[in-house]
Amino acid sequence: MSKPLKLGVAGLGTVGAGVLNLLRQNGDVIAARAGRPIEVVAVSARDRTRDRGVDVTGLAWHEDAVALAADPNVEVVVELIGGSEGPARRLVEAALAAGKPVVTANKALLATHGAALAQLSEAKATPLAYEAAVAGGIPAIKALREGLAGNRISRVAGILNGTCNYILTEMRVKGLPFDVVLKTAQELGYAEADPAFDIDGVDAAHKLAILAALAFGHQVDLKALHIEGIRNVSALDIALAGELGYRIKLLGIASQDEAGVTARVHPCMVPEASPIASVDGVFNAVLAEGDAVGRVVLQGRGAGAGPTASAVVADLVDIARGRTAPVWGAASATLATAPGLPMERHRGAYYLRLMVLDQPGVIADVTGALRDAKISLESMLQRGRAPGEAVPVVLVTHECEEAQMQSALARIAALPSVVEPPAMIRIEEL
Amino acid sequence: MSKPLKLGVAGLGTVGAGVLNLLRQNGDVIAARAGRPIEVVAVSARDRTRDRGVDVTGLAWHEDAVALAADPNVEVVVELIGGSEGPARRLVEAALAAGKPVVTANKALLATHGAALAQLSEAKATPLAYEAAVAGGIPAIKALREGLAGNRISRVAGILNGTCNYILTEMRVKGLPFDVVLKTAQELGYAEADPAFDIDGVDAAHKLAILAALAFGHQVDLKALHIEGIRNVSALDIALAGELGYRIKLLGIASQDEAGVTARVHPCMVPEASPIASVDGVFNAVLAEGDAVGRVVLQGRGAGAGPTASAVVADLVDIARGRTAPVWGAASATLATAPGLPMERHRGAYYLRLMVLDQPGVIADVTGALRDAKISLESMLQRGRAPGEAVPVVLVTHECEEAQMQSALARIAALPSVVEPPAMIRIEEL
Repeated sequence: MSKPLKLGVAGLGTVGAGVLNLLRQNGDVIAARAGRPIEVVAVSARDRTRDRGVDVTGLAWHEDAVALAADPNVEVVVELIGGSEGPARRLVEAALAAGKPVVTANKALLATHGAALAQLSEAKATPLAYEAAVAGGIPAIKALREGLAGNRISRVAGILNGTCNYILTEMRVKGLPFDVVLKTAQELGYAEADPAFDIDGVDAAHKLAILAALAFGHQVDLKALHIEGIRNVSALDIALAGELGYRIKLLGIASQDEAGVTARVHPCMVPEASPIASVDGVFNAVLAEGDAVGRVVLQGRGAGAGPTASAVVADLVDIARGRTAPVWGAASATLATAPGLPMERHRGAYYLRLMVLDQPGVIADVTGALRDAKISLESMLQRGRAPGEAVPVVLVTHECEEAQMQSALARIAALPSVVEPPAMIRIEEL
Repeated sequence: MSKPLKLGVAGLGTVGAGVLNLLRQNGDVIAARAGRPIEVVAVSARDRTRDRGVDVTGLAWHEDAVALAADPNVEVVVELIGGSEGPARRLVEAALAAGKPVVTANKALLATHGAALAQLSEAKATPLAYEAAVAGGIPAIKALREGLAGNRISRVAGILNGTCNYILTEMRVKGLPFDVVLKTAQELGYAEADPAFDIDGVDAAHKLAILAALAFGHQVDLKALHIEGIRNVSALDIALAGELGYRIKLLGIASQDEAGVTARVHPCMVPEASPIASVDGVFNAVLAEGDAVGRVVLQGRGAGAGPTASAVVADLVDIARGRTAPVWGAASATLATAPGLPMERHRGAYYLRLMVLDQPGVIADVTGALRDAKISLESMLQRGRAPGEAVPVVLVTHECEEAQMQSALARIAALPSVVEPPAMIRIEEL
């Protein structure tokens, strides 16, 4: 067996400790698959005294993470600090500049600085691997970059944020409102004290930007993404979706056709028979459609110490074996710059749920607004009667363009008999 | 861009023609991902005059497939002939001996001669890649070998034969008997004229042997596999399974614990909520459980020109990029030889369906046989009454050992009031 591959690990939070533990616990099988042992020789974290559930005795300790890149004993840098700027970015840049391969779980960094980092990686012929950045332990990056390399990918989509999927699942199963479930999720550690990054869709958007760049061979373009989170999803809409045969999921979806690339993160209604409709709780799923392969769906745990460490170690085994790939699957010079299409150009079917006063003429006003926007209805559902009070009305449309829908929605929202802002959820046939 | 990677393709059936077409149709994206163009320069097939829907003008033609290994213009050999012996085996051995990388879709060859081929591949430092051998376009080999390389895998399982899954799905959806659906499948080209290889579980067993070898780091041991096909699955049992909340699937399942490895292919009842219960028709699924990652499930098309070509091209892109791995994920010398456990040692819950004469004392006799074998019942279902005639009785047991069940079954089958051989299907909590 060859000599060990020596790592410097920056960040000893849940994931960092998980990586150290996994490398020790499965050292024998990892060495067999890597062709050589993989050993941590140096670490960096903010507080040296904190108990992390992992023994760091005998490892070099750097106060400054960036020093790992200069440590002559470190051959590969594992960046698990997180964040698109600061020490994470400086460490990754310094390591690549020094010709040291980098493994990272940092989706924000990749989504924000992916183009520049890919160029640096190529200029230095030094790999930058990030399987752990998307969908935790699911080998989605490898599947897209290598496993489907023969395909033109038309669509990539997924349940990319476990916090949102957990909240939506709990809301459905227990019939509870968003705020109540979010609070429980925070108590259980499934959601952060400041949950905005997850529940407003930003985390899913970072991951989708990475998947889209790999799938379509484009530079990441985070600014072209349409992003909506799950704050406005109500328990009522989840229940009504169930009656219509749908589940509500926060999806990231990127698709490409002749006109360009559409990339969006928002709550979706997916048919219950869809392979991703039943991916519940903290599980993630990634779906890809290729011209040769058809549809491939991968599912598994999207977060946590074990799954994320699994992905980090997979990248390390690749590096130990000399298995490398360009950051975005192809050399930067060959990447296209397809135009990002605005959300107004999205086409699809829509679910609308209105709270209307139960009085004559209301339905005529609402359907008239849709007719004027040239939107045709597939079905309408009015439940219960309460003369003079507000009752829910559900409308499901045929496919139309987002711009049409927005124009109709503006008129509907302004009707005096519509007493709450309309709920609109896009329907996806995945 | 570097100079092209030159291929010799043996076998121009559906898959061979699919590979040639895919390499042409997606040549630009494949070259970008491979870092160089991938071109077919030579082919071999039995009949030169047959129209295969692919243009072979300008390609060298070898009557003898094995000659591709000696063609100085061929850098990589693609073996798509099939079969564990004959020209397929001779070509793969000759190519590896000549130091030419091989890509194959040949599960029978890998399952039968995998150990010797792995040693040859290592001795010559020449890769042998076979993504297309298991689960068609699903990148399952790559996921197990590389994507989950940090894990100890405890179980790998899957729907590995599209013909069987199509037949079982049609039987369920249309309520038709096995023979009728098989005939339709043959007319549609989903089943061979001689369907034994598929419906008796042999094809699934080859694929399971490959997955088990990769997952557990053992040499393939086809002889230790327990194999049952789907000929005896009845429409009645499929309907009763549905009533109990299960689907019947032909699964390959391999698991490893301290005692050894169990590998088996047989019809299973899986809970409807299982992620593979809803994988229907010609789709395949592969499930793996790792100690770090937890459960990962991959699904997609398991056969056909496009999906299989997608897998072949993925291997070719890996070879063009210099991304290689030992045949079984680790060097042959490090592979273990864990004992294969006999089927009698399998533990699980069982579904039994008996046709019994509707007369006093029958149930007491049946449950007495189970009690004597120390098997406890979870539930029993007796439907309808027809005094003096045969009625179905369904029994679901708690977990017991296969040997106990076989002993009870022998006694039950011998009861005078049990008028047909009992149907027994194993229940799997996947």
